[in-house]
Amino acid sequence: MSKYLSEKFNNLEPYVPGEQPQDRRYVKLNTNESPFPPSPKVIEATSVSEISIQNLYSDPTAKRLVESIAKYYTNYVKERGVDFEFTKDNVIVSNGSDEVLAFIFNAYTDKDKGMACPEIGYGFYPVFCSSLNVPFVSVKINEDFSLDLAKFKGIRENICIANPNAQTGLYITVSDIKTLLSENKERLIIIDEAYCDFGGESAAVLIKDYPNLIVVSTLSKSRQLAGARIGFALASKEIIQDLNTLKYSFNPYNLNRLSIIAGSVAMEDVEYFNKTREVIIKNREYLKGALTALGFKVTNSKSNFILASTPKMGGKELYLALKERGVLVRFLSDELLKDWVRITIGSMEQLNTLINTIKEVLGE
Amino acid sequence: MSKYLSEKFNNLEPYVPGEQPQDRRYVKLNTNESPFPPSPKVIEATSVSEISIQNLYSDPTAKRLVESIAKYYTNYVKERGVDFEFTKDNVIVSNGSDEVLAFIFNAYTDKDKGMACPEIGYGFYPVFCSSLNVPFVSVKINEDFSLDLAKFKGIRENICIANPNAQTGLYITVSDIKTLLSENKERLIIIDEAYCDFGGESAAVLIKDYPNLIVVSTLSKSRQLAGARIGFALASKEIIQDLNTLKYSFNPYNLNRLSIIAGSVAMEDVEYFNKTREVIIKNREYLKGALTALGFKVTNSKSNFILASTPKMGGKELYLALKERGVLVRFLSDELLKDWVRITIGSMEQLNTLINTIKEVLGE
Repeated sequence: MSKYLSEKFNNLEPYVPGEQPQDRRYVKLNTNESPFPPSPKVIEATSVSEISIQNLYSDPTAKRLVESIAKYYTNYVKERGVDFEFTKDNVIVSNGSDEVLAFIFNAYTDKDKGMACPEIGYGFYPVFCSSLNVPFVSVKINEDFSLDLAKFKGIRENICIANPNAQTGLYITVSDIKTLLSENKERLIIIDEAYCDFGGESAAVLIKDYPNLIVVSTLSKSRQLAGARIGFALASKEIIQDLNTLKYSFNPYNLNRLSIIAGSVAMEDVEYFNKTREVIIKNREYLKGALTALGFKVTNSKSNFILASTPKMGGKELYLALKERGVLVRFLSDELLKDWVRITIGSMEQLNTLINTIKEVLGE
Repeated sequence: MSKYLSEKFNNLEPYVPGEQPQDRRYVKLNTNESPFPPSPKVIEATSVSEISIQNLYSDPTAKRLVESIAKYYTNYVKERGVDFEFTKDNVIVSNGSDEVLAFIFNAYTDKDKGMACPEIGYGFYPVFCSSLNVPFVSVKINEDFSLDLAKFKGIRENICIANPNAQTGLYITVSDIKTLLSENKERLIIIDEAYCDFGGESAAVLIKDYPNLIVVSTLSKSRQLAGARIGFALASKEIIQDLNTLKYSFNPYNLNRLSIIAGSVAMEDVEYFNKTREVIIKNREYLKGALTALGFKVTNSKSNFILASTPKMGGKELYLALKERGVLVRFLSDELLKDWVRITIGSMEQLNTLINTIKEVLGE
């Protein structure tokens, strides 16, 4: 720390991303990446002619990507009987969903009014609050990790919920979110759907009727583009206007040329998206079965990971034993999760390696 | 604006980027892009195999790019007789230099101590201050647009100077910067060198001896990668630590996979870098001559643009007349610059089109 750093950051504890070790090759099941490459159409669209014009700035409005996202969600809600047309005024894109979350936390909090989140969620939420010097209000969850939405009553903060939960994979229904929105019209409800495409329903169906809703998502998980850094938010025109004001005050050209193209093509290749996420869902259920057979408890995850716990050892011990054998899973530092590890749903080959390694570790 | 937006943003006026019109093709000389494509080695390195692993997160430390930048500047300062080894501890990379500037403004200002900048500079500096609710201290420049560094005496703020100046192209010497650093050891001096590679000398030679210096730069101009969004800062280990604390509290994976590769290869292809910037410098001197012959005043720019003014019409009028004829230059809204337009140094073909169009407009 330099002597010049503003005192406001004296107590800032940055987020610690999942390990990206370079020392050896691991079966890497720790950061919820997709085991599939990007859509072949994405690879084709990232052509030499596009690569060759990177001397030119990217479109600060990222029009092409914004329109592809709007089109996808218009179809999505129409298929579910909601007559709403998403336009560019309902979408903002960002350099990973972390960036748009940072804009949201900044836009809608101040020192008197922070953000309320379930005590277990995405580990970045308290960091955003800390970096903005605003209160983080941690809301207790049930012992089985499920949310008790009644606990949000009487809190004056806006609310941010990862759905499915970023650590447990548990999911609250759109109908529950609707109740939360109806009961809290003066508060914003942010639903972070990074993991929603693996069995959940998107709260995008509620944007039409609830101006107090923001849906956040990413192309990192279900669209195979973690390395291209693309996130987005859906909301009312007024909210998107707020967030664009922040974007144009921090980083107008926040998406690069190739990510705009890749993201747009990935959003439009619904066939590849469906095919790959179906495999992930199938593999997840396979892993749940295999680990249960080995005496594990596993969460009923609707995500591309599961949380798993064995009575035979603590989470950290299991994580270290697997790492030593070349399989990387994630141990989450929260005290509530000390018995658990979070395992990304990889390919069948990766999962079988994991299962065999676990058997070895447990001495079965 | 939504009713939820925090009051702290009531008066925020976002930055307005240069036009990126989609309606027709222009000879585009308004946003200081390079007329050259990225290095052939960059194009080669952005291979299908790299594109195909975008399902994996990028390296949050961007090691490969950070090391290439450190290596470039180690050679740079050694060639100038300064024995200093830049390491990963002296470099941070960002999603365009706007992002690292935002980190710097955030890290080193608060409500009691803002940032002091010359009244004409990069238009984003006052916006950063406004978005952070910290004072922007505007320091008067001379009538010929040159800086009077004595005017920074007695100001308690940290100082941020674009060198060359982002609007006038004028340049202050490393020896002047050294004096500023020596006289202000308790204040940080930020030198934004976005345009430094076209005839200026980098203040990187002073990093070794001045822990109160931050040098900011970008790969957007002299390395043909505006569309890949890559910026960086050089400073002491302590300062880089501060900035990493902020990065890991906002957006740890702030650079995408392909930009890390492109940036690294571009930094290492010194031959292409030198060849292209020499052409820009030659073309700049050609344009200065041609416009002077047409009765224009032009600034003594050390950048990849010049500021030009004709007694025959105002800046806005000239900008509009050129735009109507398919040539885009930049009219800068500052009252001090109302007689001027900023013209990017393009290819000879673009410049000759510009010159002929100007002749047409002036009726010569």
